[in-house]
Amino acid sequence: VSTPKLPTRLAGAPGAATTRDSAPPRDLSGLVARCDAAGIDWLDDAATLDEHARDWWPVSIGWAAHGELLARPGIVVLPSSTAAVLEVVAACNDARVPFTVQGGRSGVCGGAVPEPGAVALDLTRLTGVLEFDEVSLRVRVNAGTFGPELEAWLRARGCTAGHFPQSMDLSTVGGWVACRGAGQYSTRYGKIEDLVRGLTVVLPDATVVATGSAGPRQASGPDLTQLFVGAEGTLGVVTEVELVVHRLPGSEERRAWSFDSFAQGLEACRAILQRGATPAVLRLYDPAESTRQFDVDRAVLIVLDEADDLLLAATISIVEEACREGRPEDVALVGRWLEHRNDVSALGALWERGIVVDTIETAATWAALPHVHADVVSAILAVNGTAVATVHQSHAYLDGACLYFTFAGRPEDADAYYREVWDAATAAALNAGASLSHHHGVGRNRSGYLRDALGHGADVLAAIKAALDPRWLANPSVLGLRPPLEGR
Amino acid sequence: VSTPKLPTRLAGAPGAATTRDSAPPRDLSGLVARCDAAGIDWLDDAATLDEHARDWWPVSIGWAAHGELLARPGIVVLPSSTAAVLEVVAACNDARVPFTVQGGRSGVCGGAVPEPGAVALDLTRLTGVLEFDEVSLRVRVNAGTFGPELEAWLRARGCTAGHFPQSMDLSTVGGWVACRGAGQYSTRYGKIEDLVRGLTVVLPDATVVATGSAGPRQASGPDLTQLFVGAEGTLGVVTEVELVVHRLPGSEERRAWSFDSFAQGLEACRAILQRGATPAVLRLYDPAESTRQFDVDRAVLIVLDEADDLLLAATISIVEEACREGRPEDVALVGRWLEHRNDVSALGALWERGIVVDTIETAATWAALPHVHADVVSAILAVNGTAVATVHQSHAYLDGACLYFTFAGRPEDADAYYREVWDAATAAALNAGASLSHHHGVGRNRSGYLRDALGHGADVLAAIKAALDPRWLANPSVLGLRPPLEGR
Repeated sequence: VSTPKLPTRLAGAPGAATTRDSAPPRDLSGLVARCDAAGIDWLDDAATLDEHARDWWPVSIGWAAHGELLARPGIVVLPSSTAAVLEVVAACNDARVPFTVQGGRSGVCGGAVPEPGAVALDLTRLTGVLEFDEVSLRVRVNAGTFGPELEAWLRARGCTAGHFPQSMDLSTVGGWVACRGAGQYSTRYGKIEDLVRGLTVVLPDATVVATGSAGPRQASGPDLTQLFVGAEGTLGVVTEVELVVHRLPGSEERRAWSFDSFAQGLEACRAILQRGATPAVLRLYDPAESTRQFDVDRAVLIVLDEADDLLLAATISIVEEACREGRPEDVALVGRWLEHRNDVSALGALWERGIVVDTIETAATWAALPHVHADVVSAILAVNGTAVATVHQSHAYLDGACLYFTFAGRPEDADAYYREVWDAATAAALNAGASLSHHHGVGRNRSGYLRDALGHGADVLAAIKAALDPRWLANPSVLGLRPPLEGR
Repeated sequence: VSTPKLPTRLAGAPGAATTRDSAPPRDLSGLVARCDAAGIDWLDDAATLDEHARDWWPVSIGWAAHGELLARPGIVVLPSSTAAVLEVVAACNDARVPFTVQGGRSGVCGGAVPEPGAVALDLTRLTGVLEFDEVSLRVRVNAGTFGPELEAWLRARGCTAGHFPQSMDLSTVGGWVACRGAGQYSTRYGKIEDLVRGLTVVLPDATVVATGSAGPRQASGPDLTQLFVGAEGTLGVVTEVELVVHRLPGSEERRAWSFDSFAQGLEACRAILQRGATPAVLRLYDPAESTRQFDVDRAVLIVLDEADDLLLAATISIVEEACREGRPEDVALVGRWLEHRNDVSALGALWERGIVVDTIETAATWAALPHVHADVVSAILAVNGTAVATVHQSHAYLDGACLYFTFAGRPEDADAYYREVWDAATAAALNAGASLSHHHGVGRNRSGYLRDALGHGADVLAAIKAALDPRWLANPSVLGLRPPLEGR
């Protein structure tokens, strides 16, 4: 079995952990028989069930240190083809058993934690590139393929996906799609929803749909692809993903500046984007994070771009003009970021020491960003027990950007503190006009806020789910969707 | 009443035209009473009903010359606010009367032709800019606003929407969204689905949903905005649209080349896009169209870009390098295109003379485009009566482009010939891996092909429609959706 690396060991012997969410045992015998008949592997030993009960949701990492799980699945099923996924979903329908799709389980909102006693549908054996069109720069890949495998495959052919989330080593292509992820180079290449051209999805009613089209764009009704990107497994199981890719760029340039304030740095970023330049990396840190990361007590901006030589030169010139009010810094800062950018190894140790730490990402327009910044930091600091609340800007667009907050505290009651911070920060962000999430998704952690964020849109999503998943089986506890009363 | 200009007069006295599609008279008295009570204007004189029975679907323009309509509405309702639209939709629900939203009625697939005896919901009084954020470059506009009004408003503030469809003078913002439209400068600015950030939609069950978010991107479940873009009024009535805009560019550059063949020109376009350059206009004509438009018996490529000076210079350099195998042509060709680009005044006269003429747009990957080109032209030429079948490439992307075919013939039976060409061309395009449509949409004309194009996706769309429109009232005859048997 594939073993995505989680940052903490689950305390105690396999099977001994207590679960916060439990249900009476389910009869999985019919499902097991069907898997056996179809040659689909499954596991239900205690150690496997324990591991598949977990993902990178920080608060649950804290629980694991004390031998606690949210919910333990009844079985882990390991299909290695779309046909096998279809068989499993059909069996779940017959048995009325919910299923939760899992990839690398690197999500940080609890979206891959299965229902108690139900099916963990692990796609990490559904791997590999299916088609590659080097003329059109398109690749079709199985959803369980991990990021490094896809990127290495493409680089051997002179191409790149351009998608490098912090979770790169731990996450699958299907996971990127499920949570509407973003890579660190997204300001040039786009978020996953900008890169995906089509999907194969096993729907909750055990039928298969191919979305998208051979063309780069179409006007053949609504875009069904975008209905499944970000659905976090609630509308079906994405089994194949078609992406645009790019030829490896000719050159790379790096720059670093610092600004008197975060706000001044944001204005420089806005000027760059609104002149039409899209440097791959444009990350601005507030003075506190700049000090922590770079030993610079100002607002550090690191810039990295890779592109065709001519466009790269034009982009860097625009960046330099926009940063005239900044102070040039050693470009080695960019290298320092590159080296440590995916290192989250400290997380588990912090939680084990009773330090509550997490990140909250959101997005807003340039006009709203200063308010979002001030209000969210104030809201977090106002929660008793908070030691740190900092921010950086991580992904920029013509009309706004993503703000990425980090908080830490050492409270008496970790769970209560954690929820209090999330409640306060989310309310502040939404009130200031920000989105609920930019790229981490909703999962279980944010499911209580969906209605605040989407309003009647939450009913629309629930109505669509009820139409596609009348038995409400596909990852039912994430996103915060509630079945319409008449729909069950 | 607003009077979008249609290219032909409807022959005969008002009310005298025969209709191809008719239904028993409907009782609209309750709806009229509610409109009166709410102060919502309506009209049902014969001349108004005749005009609102029509759009720019070419074959119906031919019918009009003989005093024929597809279907005459029972009433034209003219709401001037979202609240008024909500009231009309609620009244339609009570009376079980279908409604079809209309803007400029410039669509070319019959998507704005109402149901017989039912409600034409004309939004051309729902106009004007609601909000403008010049810091974040966002505008919120009522859906019935015509293109030139929005663009003039923005230009007075130093901005542009960057969206210039051929129908510019005749089309509304809501119409752009409804049919997933494209502007002629889309290779730099994007299609409407790339520009829209949020919508206000009156759903068929008479509730209102706001989609999108204040942020430039979000990961808060699936993107509901994209569910309504391209729905052609079948999932609700879009009443407000939020778009990103751009500051007016510093400069413009024009270039023209010609190539030995269309295929050679396509390779140049591909090289440009795949190096990351996105010139606003990159239009390649086959030798037949080049001769007709420019008096050049080769494949003419016209290029126009507008952007920040540095990015513009880099883009033009990339274009020049990619076009080395081409022959430079007089840049006056670009001016000639600009001058005549929106002139479709000949269309009505041709149809009145018995000449069947129409355009078919589709999109495919670069690898598939040569096959799509060859197969569609062959398929059209194989239809008895065809005089002309030509093509140009009009919108380009990293992974492919839009091909825009023009055909003309002078057959015995215009209707039969028209359908035969559409059937043959569509089958050829889909078989060669192209999309059903790039930006004209489906409407009534292509509704018979939706299942061929989307497969099981057509069932998914129908299930979503049934969930949001259980009475199947919103523009029921377009897109080709069929109600699920148990859904009515």
